[in-house]
Amino acid sequence: MTDHYRFILPEEQIPQAWYNINPDMPVDIGPVIDPKTMQPATFDYLAELFPRRFLEENVSNERWIEIPRPVRDLYRIWRPSPLVRAHRLEKALDTPAHIYYKFEGASPVGSHKPNTAIPQAFYAKEEGVKSMVTETGAGQWGSALSMACNFFGIDCDVFMVRVSYNQKPFRRVVMESYGAHVVPSPSDKTEYGRKLLRENPEHLGNLGIAISESLEVVMKSKGAVKYSLGSGLGVVLMHQTVVGLEAQKQFEMAGEYPDILVGCIGGGSNFSGFTFPFLGDNLTKGIKTRIIAVEPVACPSVTKGLYTFDYVDSGEMGPIAKVYTLGHDFMPPAIHAGGLRLHFMAQHVSALYNHGDIECVAVGQESTFQAASQFLKAEGFIPAPESAHAVKVAIDEAIRCREEGVKKVIGFNFSGHGLLDLAAYDAYNHGTLPDTSYPAAEVAEALKNLPKIEL
Amino acid sequence: MTDHYRFILPEEQIPQAWYNINPDMPVDIGPVIDPKTMQPATFDYLAELFPRRFLEENVSNERWIEIPRPVRDLYRIWRPSPLVRAHRLEKALDTPAHIYYKFEGASPVGSHKPNTAIPQAFYAKEEGVKSMVTETGAGQWGSALSMACNFFGIDCDVFMVRVSYNQKPFRRVVMESYGAHVVPSPSDKTEYGRKLLRENPEHLGNLGIAISESLEVVMKSKGAVKYSLGSGLGVVLMHQTVVGLEAQKQFEMAGEYPDILVGCIGGGSNFSGFTFPFLGDNLTKGIKTRIIAVEPVACPSVTKGLYTFDYVDSGEMGPIAKVYTLGHDFMPPAIHAGGLRLHFMAQHVSALYNHGDIECVAVGQESTFQAASQFLKAEGFIPAPESAHAVKVAIDEAIRCREEGVKKVIGFNFSGHGLLDLAAYDAYNHGTLPDTSYPAAEVAEALKNLPKIEL
Repeated sequence: MTDHYRFILPEEQIPQAWYNINPDMPVDIGPVIDPKTMQPATFDYLAELFPRRFLEENVSNERWIEIPRPVRDLYRIWRPSPLVRAHRLEKALDTPAHIYYKFEGASPVGSHKPNTAIPQAFYAKEEGVKSMVTETGAGQWGSALSMACNFFGIDCDVFMVRVSYNQKPFRRVVMESYGAHVVPSPSDKTEYGRKLLRENPEHLGNLGIAISESLEVVMKSKGAVKYSLGSGLGVVLMHQTVVGLEAQKQFEMAGEYPDILVGCIGGGSNFSGFTFPFLGDNLTKGIKTRIIAVEPVACPSVTKGLYTFDYVDSGEMGPIAKVYTLGHDFMPPAIHAGGLRLHFMAQHVSALYNHGDIECVAVGQESTFQAASQFLKAEGFIPAPESAHAVKVAIDEAIRCREEGVKKVIGFNFSGHGLLDLAAYDAYNHGTLPDTSYPAAEVAEALKNLPKIEL
Repeated sequence: MTDHYRFILPEEQIPQAWYNINPDMPVDIGPVIDPKTMQPATFDYLAELFPRRFLEENVSNERWIEIPRPVRDLYRIWRPSPLVRAHRLEKALDTPAHIYYKFEGASPVGSHKPNTAIPQAFYAKEEGVKSMVTETGAGQWGSALSMACNFFGIDCDVFMVRVSYNQKPFRRVVMESYGAHVVPSPSDKTEYGRKLLRENPEHLGNLGIAISESLEVVMKSKGAVKYSLGSGLGVVLMHQTVVGLEAQKQFEMAGEYPDILVGCIGGGSNFSGFTFPFLGDNLTKGIKTRIIAVEPVACPSVTKGLYTFDYVDSGEMGPIAKVYTLGHDFMPPAIHAGGLRLHFMAQHVSALYNHGDIECVAVGQESTFQAASQFLKAEGFIPAPESAHAVKVAIDEAIRCREEGVKKVIGFNFSGHGLLDLAAYDAYNHGTLPDTSYPAAEVAEALKNLPKIEL
């Protein structure tokens, strides 16, 4: 038993500080634009939406930002998470590659999302905020924020995309179990929601609409309610670096250094959290670890989108940023990886891809579930459909190692388990899972409606 | 951060051997009876049903039985599991008690069940068996055996109680994802099933019927198919002692020794696995740890049943044993803790309770979910409805500590998470969860039909 499966750090080694990539960024990510002025947003504009400490972290140029004690205390519920050597998968693939996965499925809600939900709720609590609001697609993020708000005694309201609210009631149950209030979006709680429901009472909603509803609630609350978001913003990516910082120590325990790192991207947070600490070493120490982001062909913001200014929401209420985008009017197809159905990519990930520091590939739904099935039969754990995108590319790279006869060390982020996404596996097991393709015409249409920014 | 949350053992400390309580039992558990002869079963009769090595372990009087290397290798996927100090729950209860829980929800299928599924599949593989069959209620056990059979390349057929098959499709999806074949019971695959379906084509089934169907398949297979069961038999309880053996080392890490240990009982395996190593110390070293089994008031085999010989299955095909029983015709009410809906209790647990070595309490459904809700809001993790029974009594004991002003160390087995049982939480959250009571008339009726054994 010298070849370990799981590399586990003691509680004391939960990172003391997050890694902030800002000072190491090789390119500028560009400003955030206030949609009312079409000029760079002021701190005060953003402070209407978010807790101030959260925003201070977002613009900080300090490389290390201390994790507050109450946040680390709550991280201890499931952190440090294991880094696992996928011995059985390697054997099944007959590959000389060594495959490792960071297991973020160990959190109470089954994904990496609490890593940022907890500090966001804590900063709101510090400011005396009594209520937070957010949106959620399939429900991973909403579950995490519901749990975090519960821990700090803050009310939590969640706008859940209606199609998921109807089809996947169990994530709603998780949120409600932590005491959150969940409504289907579009809802009658906002002007924007009411407008959409008047046009179509059966409107199924999407993430961009749910973001707009959340923002409307916050902006009308005059500071009483703060907004919380699960991905995209630099500070959110930074909170996730606990994942990669732990993984660095765990690879050291294993006596290996990764040649290839893989993560799936929707907004970009689990990918960034896992890879940025290693990327920092690439950027500052001349290491050449390949870093691969994986997106769905059905919503390929990075590989098919434009790198330009766009709104983060459908209702054009939210900030504008320079990102890879498919257009904020783009309605992604109903793939099972709900967490990857976002029209744009985080600023940092966008800039790094554009600058050539990271790679990106798009994969289809069927091949993704094939890979997930191979993984779960070898390793036991059932990946979330989102995480299955990382599994797919990790397996592809391991097969390439076999074909080329080279041993590489491959790491990927198992960002969440799939125990609340089993309808997708049912369809796959019974041969009824539709494959996906690139919705070129819809993207071309959506890209016609980009904001004009002149700075 | 000196007061740890999670006590985690290194992989090397997965126990090398299971603890077999047989040599330390203060009383005889009585023979297993062959229903064809109504006399003590021969080894050969039982070997028609089970792998021989499994049966050898069942009757062994060795205190320590080595865990085979391939089994330990697979345990490494999630073992050692954490022992967690429930600091936040203690604070919420304002109790001087120290509360610990052993977290068996960390396995890929979310419960302790793989601890025995893996050795059972391995022993079948060793004998060249190509196919195993079992029954499952809500699906925890079926999921575990499906995963284990997949690891060893053995076919797995599962009879799933029809009411669960219809209402809880996701556990079926888990089983099918590992490659198992799942049919609703009663089914048209067996004579007994066909008979019941002729009488009532809509028959909802129960665990006792599903056991009978499994046994019929095995008995007709002439050795080609072996039976596997998830609880009850002594060897199954023994496989679960990895839980308690790890917990002993973890309490040592924490510098504490438990005053009270709590586990829920359906067949008795998670309770026994967690407590028997400590009970062994009670029996042999004069330690006085209180050991409390918790059952539902709706199916209270120990606190309301008779201690007598009864069949383990409804169809009167399976072995007969001396157990606490509500009668093998008893149809337990449809409580959410499906894993606790069994008419009898394991022989060892029955004998120990009868002899006064352990305690038992029965709790109602509503108070159980109240306790589970309090737990998950404090600790994050959502307990399975079965495990919630242990949570309830651990909380009750912690409150008693507060009232009496005494600090006790309380440990309970968090035998599984509830992420596949969220319909129950939905009902609880919305005030529509029915409370339960003792079905006295039905039990009285069922107890009229016990087998007559004259030895």
